[in-house]
Amino acid sequence: MNNFNFYTPTKVVFGKGVENQVGELVNGEKCKKVLIHYGGQSAKKSGLLERIIKSLDEKGIRHVQLGGVVPNPRLSLVYEGIELCQKEGVDFILAVGGGSVIDSAKAIGYGMTNDGDVWDFYDHKRQASACLPIGTVLTIAAAGSEMSNSSVITNEDGWIKRGYSSDFCRPVFAVMNPELTMTLTEYQTASGCADILMHTMERYFNQSENMDLTDGISEALMRTVIKYAKILMSEPDNYEARAEVMWAGSLSHNGLTGCGTDGGDWATHALEHEIGGMFDVAHGAGLAAVWGSWARYVYKGRPERFVKFAENVMMVSGKDEEDTILKGIEAVEEFYRSIHMPTNMKELGVEPTDEQIEEMAEKCSIAKGGSCGIVKQLKKEDMIEIYRMAR
Amino acid sequence: MNNFNFYTPTKVVFGKGVENQVGELVNGEKCKKVLIHYGGQSAKKSGLLERIIKSLDEKGIRHVQLGGVVPNPRLSLVYEGIELCQKEGVDFILAVGGGSVIDSAKAIGYGMTNDGDVWDFYDHKRQASACLPIGTVLTIAAAGSEMSNSSVITNEDGWIKRGYSSDFCRPVFAVMNPELTMTLTEYQTASGCADILMHTMERYFNQSENMDLTDGISEALMRTVIKYAKILMSEPDNYEARAEVMWAGSLSHNGLTGCGTDGGDWATHALEHEIGGMFDVAHGAGLAAVWGSWARYVYKGRPERFVKFAENVMMVSGKDEEDTILKGIEAVEEFYRSIHMPTNMKELGVEPTDEQIEEMAEKCSIAKGGSCGIVKQLKKEDMIEIYRMAR
Repeated sequence: MNNFNFYTPTKVVFGKGVENQVGELVNGEKCKKVLIHYGGQSAKKSGLLERIIKSLDEKGIRHVQLGGVVPNPRLSLVYEGIELCQKEGVDFILAVGGGSVIDSAKAIGYGMTNDGDVWDFYDHKRQASACLPIGTVLTIAAAGSEMSNSSVITNEDGWIKRGYSSDFCRPVFAVMNPELTMTLTEYQTASGCADILMHTMERYFNQSENMDLTDGISEALMRTVIKYAKILMSEPDNYEARAEVMWAGSLSHNGLTGCGTDGGDWATHALEHEIGGMFDVAHGAGLAAVWGSWARYVYKGRPERFVKFAENVMMVSGKDEEDTILKGIEAVEEFYRSIHMPTNMKELGVEPTDEQIEEMAEKCSIAKGGSCGIVKQLKKEDMIEIYRMAR
Repeated sequence: MNNFNFYTPTKVVFGKGVENQVGELVNGEKCKKVLIHYGGQSAKKSGLLERIIKSLDEKGIRHVQLGGVVPNPRLSLVYEGIELCQKEGVDFILAVGGGSVIDSAKAIGYGMTNDGDVWDFYDHKRQASACLPIGTVLTIAAAGSEMSNSSVITNEDGWIKRGYSSDFCRPVFAVMNPELTMTLTEYQTASGCADILMHTMERYFNQSENMDLTDGISEALMRTVIKYAKILMSEPDNYEARAEVMWAGSLSHNGLTGCGTDGGDWATHALEHEIGGMFDVAHGAGLAAVWGSWARYVYKGRPERFVKFAENVMMVSGKDEEDTILKGIEAVEEFYRSIHMPTNMKELGVEPTDEQIEEMAEKCSIAKGGSCGIVKQLKKEDMIEIYRMAR
């Protein structure tokens, strides 16, 4: 078992109607002016933004707005946000949306509290020393950014998608009303579920000795997501299912499912980042499209772990070890198909040429310092092979 | 599913040798002077206190000491601690020990930041508005106080044992080296495991709708504690087992296993508090001694929950619902016997008279405003009956 740190300071306020507590929660932070950061029109149309503004106004909290965050959030909007916050004297960011909005808020927060170009952190040239306090009102269960230490930004100059992690950016509160996710499209819901599942799978597939307690928690979480994702396909308004998935999203990425391990594999995320950077796909769908190929390429690097996964999470077993492993991988793909997620890039709507695959592998290799993954260490040629298998 | 808040700001630093990071962790809190609070001689004899002092001295952090905390920590020492801290200008408390030491530190912390008698909070006459920051170096896996919002103090004037909870007292950090627990006696280890198990069981047995994810996490946690408690009886130096139990102790009482529920039953704790207050027994052992009688008295109040517990945690099933329930209860008692824990008060070494049972039930009833428990609401006459069954 590895030594570990566990730090999740985010105050979670979970359940029906909790968005009306936003004013009170922000007021507790004793800030001067709030940036309300959000995405498209849905937060406006649904009336959510209006309720949040009302809640802030009731507490006499001043605020400015910046919308327009898109999936795979852009560096250019981050720069715009930093400029606005500087001009307006903003000292607290309220992210109203999903992972993209929260990640964009985190990047703005870094930019407001550190000198120089904020992209330096995502380019891993230097470390941040602070971040503005961030609160979140979550509208999609997926990225887990509402409790996590990570954020991912896409630089349009070269379409490079990069992540940066530090405890400074962990949100001070997360307001989570599962009802707010009922208006998502089926595709958004399913992509979110795939993302949640993958956050725990990345940690579960590792090369360390393990912690039974962490494994048991992870397995429960993965079974829960699979069960309720399927229910949501036919019952999008099922509150219990929305709530199970939403809470799983936070616990999947706040560090809990990695305690005592080596941190996990994360190659699927690295491979997807390049697909997302080049083709701008939904993150969860991109992960689903590449995972099966990754699994088949690497499982011999730690077969006993794939067996445990097959038996305890997918509840399948075969006539021998390898058969069990392959049945487990097939069961994941079958699950993805059942929620209309892709299991390859073609189904994802992306058909990269050989040159594009070469370029994605090259970029991935550079971003990860030559290789990624831990179940099997993947070099550029391995990445090319997995991209081809996933084509 | 119920709305819930989840707030666990404690920074956990877990693993071998982590006690040497104490100086750095305290330094990060920017305090002027630290009270090192501890129990008996074991922290001195083992050299732990010396290492902690060295770690503080290396950072130039001033400190004073107050030892002498006993199990079921006393109000008189809390008063002494408050006086010492006021005199010395202490603004940070470092608790080196188990639940009793941490709880005593929390009470001192309340006393330092609120006017009036600190017992008022435990007597539920008023609410605290702050607490000094507290760091912990954990030496026994049991109470979960290192991440929890609760503390329990015994007032020698009437031997009244009372708990008080508020988020103010959640420790800022918890330094957890499982190796430090290897010198515990078998009885201390087993009592700790019983306490950990009960913290999740109290939450698991409730009357609300439930959250699958919380249930799955709770069941994994309970299975883990049972498995490794047994291993520790023959292998007290097994690091993995010590680590599994230690982490389970924190997660069992930091709120995670109650998310989405009504908060749980807690009658066993209430009943044990009176035994502990009158006879000064080990808390975990006291819980073990009374749980079986509680379970047999109340299970008809929510049979389906007891069935789920029997099947998913104790891995037993019977010929019908009632048989499964009783087999589950017996399996818990069998587990307790396997780790040499009592399953009744006689085995606990306590033989209360009818008058003493009447007095305990009377005190419990008053402390809980007339009744306790939620699987079945227990009034004074129910408490008397359970105490008699457990005699």
